[in-house]
Amino acid sequence: MNLAILGPGLLGGSIALAARARGGHRVAMWARRAEAVEKVNALGVAERASTDLRVVVADADFVVLCVPIGAMPSLAKQVAELIPASTIVTDVGSVKADVCAELGAIFRGRGRFVGSHPMAGSEQTGLAAARADLFEDAVSIVTPDDSSDADAVANVADFWTALGSRVLQVSPADHDRIVALISHLPHVLAAALANTVAAENARAFDFCGPGFRDTTRVAGGPPEMWAEILGANRGAVREAVEALIEKLREIATLLDRDRPMTDFLTQAKAHRDRLRLPKNPHA
Amino acid sequence: MNLAILGPGLLGGSIALAARARGGHRVAMWARRAEAVEKVNALGVAERASTDLRVVVADADFVVLCVPIGAMPSLAKQVAELIPASTIVTDVGSVKADVCAELGAIFRGRGRFVGSHPMAGSEQTGLAAARADLFEDAVSIVTPDDSSDADAVANVADFWTALGSRVLQVSPADHDRIVALISHLPHVLAAALANTVAAENARAFDFCGPGFRDTTRVAGGPPEMWAEILGANRGAVREAVEALIEKLREIATLLDRDRPMTDFLTQAKAHRDRLRLPKNPHA
Repeated sequence: MNLAILGPGLLGGSIALAARARGGHRVAMWARRAEAVEKVNALGVAERASTDLRVVVADADFVVLCVPIGAMPSLAKQVAELIPASTIVTDVGSVKADVCAELGAIFRGRGRFVGSHPMAGSEQTGLAAARADLFEDAVSIVTPDDSSDADAVANVADFWTALGSRVLQVSPADHDRIVALISHLPHVLAAALANTVAAENARAFDFCGPGFRDTTRVAGGPPEMWAEILGANRGAVREAVEALIEKLREIATLLDRDRPMTDFLTQAKAHRDRLRLPKNPHA
Repeated sequence: MNLAILGPGLLGGSIALAARARGGHRVAMWARRAEAVEKVNALGVAERASTDLRVVVADADFVVLCVPIGAMPSLAKQVAELIPASTIVTDVGSVKADVCAELGAIFRGRGRFVGSHPMAGSEQTGLAAARADLFEDAVSIVTPDDSSDADAVANVADFWTALGSRVLQVSPADHDRIVALISHLPHVLAAALANTVAAENARAFDFCGPGFRDTTRVAGGPPEMWAEILGANRGAVREAVEALIEKLREIATLLDRDRPMTDFLTQAKAHRDRLRLPKNPHA
C-alpha cells in the first residue's frame, strides 16, 4: 500500500516507522518546511519526502493527516483537490466532533474520510522522538459517523491494528466526552498541579520525587498544541473539571474522617488496578 | 556499621539492599511476623532477621524505623528500652511534625533520634519490590529540630547520601508543608481523577493511554497507608487541595479564551521542565 503521511512530527514519524517496520507499506511524507523534509531524509523515516503535496499524495492509497487540529481543514481542502475519490483518508487529531464534521464535508465525494485518534505519544515532540513501537499496546480510537464508508472504516481500523494497537470504535461526540475525562482532564490537572506548587511554595520543587514526576509528566507537552486541543473540546473539558472539583471537595471533607478516606482511596486503587494500560515505554 | 532495620516492606528491604551493596554495612532486620522473617531470609535481604526486637537492635549503631507512621510510637518505646543512648535512630515516615515530636520525646536521653523521609518508592509494596537502587538520584529529606544532636544529624545525612540520594534538610513543620504539595496533593489528585472517571463514564477506562497511566500511577498505592499519611497531615493537605481547586477554577475560566490558556500551560511546562527529577526507574 502507498501511504502518504502529512506532517513530520512525533506521530507522523512514528506512523511512518511503524508502517514500514510492521506493515510493509511504502511511505511518502509531506512537510510544510524544506528543513523538515531534510530531517525526514536524514533520519530515513520515509522513502520519499517533499514540500509538494501533489507529489506526496499523487499515488497514495491511504493518507494520514498528522498536523495540529487547527491546521487540518486547510490542508484537507488541498488534499481533496489532488486525490481520487477512492483514496482513504484519516487523521490523528485529539478532538473529533468538529474535525470529523469539517473533514467529512471537505472529503464528501472526493475521498473516503474516517477519523482516528491513536492514544499514544508523550510529552516529547518532533520527529527525533518518533518510535516504531509507539502504537504497540496503545488504544487507537476510530470515529466513524453516519456518512462513513463501511469499507473505509474497516480499512482504517485494520491499519491501526497492523501498527500494533488495540482499536476501539465510537462516534466523534462520544470520543470527545471520553477523552475529556482520560486525556484532557489529566493534562489540565498536571498543569494545575505544577502551577499550584509554583504559587504556594516554589522551593518545594527541589524536593520532588517519582510521584510528582509522573503525575505532572504530561504538563511537559507543547502548550500551543494543548491549548488548541482543550479549546476545541472546551464544553466537555469544563464538565470534567467541574466533576473533578466536586471529588476534591469530597476529599477535603473526608480528610477529617479516617475510614471514609480509606474507602475513597480503595475505590480509586480498584479502578486503577483494573485498567488495561499500555505498557510503560521505558519498561 | 551495624544497621538495624525495623520493618520488612519496600523501604526497609530497599534500605537493606542498598546499605549492603553501597555502604558495606551489616544489616539485621526485625519483622513482627515469623512469615515475614522467613521471607527476608529466603530473599537474602539481610544478614540476620528476627521477630525478637532485642536480638536485632542489641548491637546496632544505627536503627531505621520502617513501619507505618501509626505504628512508630509503640515500636519506638520498645526500642528505647533496648539501646544505649548513643545509638542513632531515624525513621522513614512520610509525615514528620507529629512523628518527630513523639519520637524525639521517646528517645530523649535514650537514643539520638533524627527524622528522615526518603522521597522514593512506588505504587508497589512489600519486600519483593525492594531494589538496591531505589534511592539513587532520589531526594532524602532529613528533618532535625532544636533538640537534635548535631553529630547524629550529620550521620543520618551521610547515611542517605551513601545510599545514592541527594539530602535536603528542613524542619519537620516545613517538611510537612512541602510534601503536602509535592507528594500528598498528587496522591489526592490521582485518586480523585480515577474516581471522577468512574463516576462520570466508567467505559472511558477502556480507552486510557499513557497520560492517564502516569497521572494516576500513585493511586495504585496502598489505601490504608495513604489514608493514614493524608490524615496525619490533614491541615496542610486541605490547604493544598483548596489552592488546587482555585487553579482549576482559573482554568475553567481560561478555557473560553485561547491565549491565556496557552500562557497557563506554558508556565506549567516551564515549572515542570526546570525540575530536577529522579530518573524514571524504568529508564
